[in-house]
Amino acid sequence: MRERIEAELKGLRQDLLTMAGLAEEAIGKAVKSLVARDPKLAEGVIQADKSIDQLEIAIDERCLKLLALYQPEAVDLRFIAMAFKLNNDLERVGDLAVNIAERVLDLIKEPPLKPLVNLTRMADLAQGMFKDSLDAFVRKDAGLARQVCLRDREVDELDHQIFRALLTYMLEDSKTITRSLSLILVSRQVERVADHATNIAEDVIYLVQGKSIKHHTKDLVAPPP
Amino acid sequence: MRERIEAELKGLRQDLLTMAGLAEEAIGKAVKSLVARDPKLAEGVIQADKSIDQLEIAIDERCLKLLALYQPEAVDLRFIAMAFKLNNDLERVGDLAVNIAERVLDLIKEPPLKPLVNLTRMADLAQGMFKDSLDAFVRKDAGLARQVCLRDREVDELDHQIFRALLTYMLEDSKTITRSLSLILVSRQVERVADHATNIAEDVIYLVQGKSIKHHTKDLVAPPP
Repeated sequence: MRERIEAELKGLRQDLLTMAGLAEEAIGKAVKSLVARDPKLAEGVIQADKSIDQLEIAIDERCLKLLALYQPEAVDLRFIAMAFKLNNDLERVGDLAVNIAERVLDLIKEPPLKPLVNLTRMADLAQGMFKDSLDAFVRKDAGLARQVCLRDREVDELDHQIFRALLTYMLEDSKTITRSLSLILVSRQVERVADHATNIAEDVIYLVQGKSIKHHTKDLVAPPP
Repeated sequence: MRERIEAELKGLRQDLLTMAGLAEEAIGKAVKSLVARDPKLAEGVIQADKSIDQLEIAIDERCLKLLALYQPEAVDLRFIAMAFKLNNDLERVGDLAVNIAERVLDLIKEPPLKPLVNLTRMADLAQGMFKDSLDAFVRKDAGLARQVCLRDREVDELDHQIFRALLTYMLEDSKTITRSLSLILVSRQVERVADHATNIAEDVIYLVQGKSIKHHTKDLVAPPP
């Protein structure tokens, strides 16, 4: 019995890693397509989302099967519950990549607006958070997960800065309005990637410590007990 | 044993309904605060989000306890898995209400932009979808859930119309830029409420029929088999 459940859990972990890899790749390529103004790259992101969607359904089924057939306990149970949530976050990140790619296809119809320094920095941060949240999940590393949660503020701050900068652009030159607006929406999508990374990191902490820190990120500033 | 699990499931259902009521109220008040330009109403939405956040954690705990202590099977198991997901959607809808309320507090610092006809219509639609998705959950009504999924397109279409109208405003009169931008972002939040309603409805269909229709909403146009 224990061997079979171990094998099933291993399969689930493998599926989640595949899905995480696809979501990571989608976000990476979407951001790259923005910087490189590459329509083929953007279209590739939109195409590839089908695999993510299919895998989401397969992972949900696997979780339910595991719960139904093996009646797992304690740690395994928390892991499966986490898998359910992680699966959802990964699928949404895939959708955000698609939204960014669709904006890119609009943006490249017009000349570039300005060097996207802050936006690419923010995208790097969000991608880093996402990657680290997944590493924290794989390594069951609550310390790394805690760091991810703390970094969310920096992304939020950059999002605000980008918003203000682009708003100023729009106010000063109405020819930039359409492009500025698209970039504001891209920035918002990137900010949501960071939010999903934070969700994942919170769930990792819950998985490892058995205690929810959701909605208590401010408590993270103090050194861990 | 069966009696105890029934009692626990009833408690879980009750918690979900409380949470759903809070989320519904939050969205309703946020939209009302936009139309009525009422800062107190908007601030109330922001304050009330704490209760939703606390309930989210309590519901997750209850689900895990149920899984661990009673090893539920088949239908009960699908219900608990659904509760997990529903809980997440409800918490996000609460967050969207907060985002809208925050935008309202900005918007009412300036004179009103224009009668918000399309936006309030879209908000009515999204709220109706959200309410119906919850009713479909309570009554295990796959037919109603299917209708909810189909209505998402109308909301998306309105969102695009609002976007284009506000973009035109911005291009024609730069004095409207800040307000138009805020309204575009509100419209986007409302559109996401409808997305969450669609998620919930898809999960209800899964719960009732044991088959995922995720990412297959186009199949819904055909009469149900």
